Amino acid sequence: MNSSKEELLKVLETIAPFIHKTPVLSSRLINEMAGCEIQFKCENFQKMGAFKMRGAMYAISQLSEEKKKKGVVTHSSGNFAQALSLAAKSLDVPAYIVMPDSAPEVKKAAVRTYGGEITECPSTLQDRETTAKKIVEDKGASFIHPSNDLNVILGQGTAATELLLDHPELDIVICPVGGGGLIAGTAIATHVLLQNCSCIGAEPLAADDAWRSLQSGKIESNSSALTIADGLKTMLGDVNFPIIRDHVQEIIRVSEEEIIAAMRLIWERMKIVVEASSAVALAAILQQKNKFSNKKVGLIISGGNVDLNSLPF
Amino acid sequence: MNSSKEELLKVLETIAPFIHKTPVLSSRLINEMAGCEIQFKCENFQKMGAFKMRGAMYAISQLSEEKKKKGVVTHSSGNFAQALSLAAKSLDVPAYIVMPDSAPEVKKAAVRTYGGEITECPSTLQDRETTAKKIVEDKGASFIHPSNDLNVILGQGTAATELLLDHPELDIVICPVGGGGLIAGTAIATHVLLQNCSCIGAEPLAADDAWRSLQSGKIESNSSALTIADGLKTMLGDVNFPIIRDHVQEIIRVSEEEIIAAMRLIWERMKIVVEASSAVALAAILQQKNKFSNKKVGLIISGGNVDLNSLPF
Repeated sequence: MNSSKEELLKVLETIAPFIHKTPVLSSRLINEMAGCEIQFKCENFQKMGAFKMRGAMYAISQLSEEKKKKGVVTHSSGNFAQALSLAAKSLDVPAYIVMPDSAPEVKKAAVRTYGGEITECPSTLQDRETTAKKIVEDKGASFIHPSNDLNVILGQGTAATELLLDHPELDIVICPVGGGGLIAGTAIATHVLLQNCSCIGAEPLAADDAWRSLQSGKIESNSSALTIADGLKTMLGDVNFPIIRDHVQEIIRVSEEEIIAAMRLIWERMKIVVEASSAVALAAILQQKNKFSNKKVGLIISGGNVDLNSLPF
Repeated sequence: MNSSKEELLKVLETIAPFIHKTPVLSSRLINEMAGCEIQFKCENFQKMGAFKMRGAMYAISQLSEEKKKKGVVTHSSGNFAQALSLAAKSLDVPAYIVMPDSAPEVKKAAVRTYGGEITECPSTLQDRETTAKKIVEDKGASFIHPSNDLNVILGQGTAATELLLDHPELDIVICPVGGGGLIAGTAIATHVLLQNCSCIGAEPLAADDAWRSLQSGKIESNSSALTIADGLKTMLGDVNFPIIRDHVQEIIRVSEEEIIAAMRLIWERMKIVVEASSAVALAAILQQKNKFSNKKVGLIISGGNVDLNSLPF
């Protein structure tokens, strides 16, 4: 990773016309409870409701004009499917989305609303990869991985870039760890922009593959992943793992009870709708108060796409 | 009502150091659905989570120093109890809160957190009034009504003042109608600050006392009030009714289903936590699309204090 401040600013400048500069909020009461000063970077207010819009936007923008005409393809049943569809639409690029046929109708409808063309397939990873590969061959479309792609990573990092440019006083930046795109981008931005600021990840105990990967020095997977933080079940990849290994100080693991309590606290006290994955980072701070005591902490709220019919409270 | 722009600005200036200037948000998708352009004034982000902080603050600020020392008293089981407690605390004034002994423990705890001293009594209106009166006599404290008090009304109107100063292009301002304090203050601000802007109220069909009051020309009450918008069950008073009668163009009534659908829309699309009472105003716009077609509309989100254990979805 050889990024410079100029490069990161150029990434931000490239996607700025197509994304929201999201607000940074704070809560006096939560600060009192946590014993530190937290700046919440609110990507729940981002377009399509999550930070993933940033990486999708930047990855598409870096394709040649010829490649853009042929379109982009990904396999995802979550936020990245919507993000890629909307980002592609903004640039008038076709988007082909491979989704498991078992995906909820509401998620398929959201992708269609944003202009994505869905190809359904059986829900195994192999089926999804084969289906995506076939679209790459048939259409000449470019495959864009949701998290294991350097341009996606650089795009996701712009949330931290915006935060750090406005808050150069921060001691620590913390964000959730799922497939590794957000934490890798955040680690790059933190490392490049602020010399004395560290980057910490937060992960559900029930899907602690990234924590185990840092322990073992190789990419680990989850045998099962029964967590409410459904955006964090995926494993790291060979592009983002070395960045995380070299530039993330620590990964803190939290229980499901801690995630739900932190989620409730954010909803009740900050009056914002955030997904469980976002609450994982606050749960980590509340669990490890000594570590964060009196620090100035930046926390990236990853998104706000929740199913109001399946709330944990 | 003989307010001038100078007077309204002075009211705002008086309370500004003690309240938040709340943000104004908008949603492209909701605008598309509604067929008009809505600016949401987000009092859910106000201190203690509701606009009531404004009126409580202004009413206390207008007491003499001697009266401030003796304290303030109100009877309320809702947001105003918390608002008066917190406002009083900001000015180092004792706050005596009369609450029905049946009030939920969580609401009593919130009042105590803000420094209010609770006196419990049976839950009839007569018991509450008698208890409050006794405190006025014993302590020499000043009674402040949650909605039927001109200073409270002027204070509540500052949400609209802030909105209209930043958005002088508005054609209509809409807000929910409960005890009448917010709508009366909003009507004064709208009337004084913008010549061609009208003020509309929104009310649950199940508690349509204000709508009936405008029809009959006298204050009507609700025989029952089974609505999810629990902040809107109260009736108007002799101070706010004439203001509402003279300066509110219309009150629109909405069903419980319309309220819940609008509440869900705000949570899902704007990613903010708002109480059902706030959703009543958006429900009114969605019900009467012709009336708002292509208009620039200001909508006052009254608050965000909800019980996450009793959500309607």
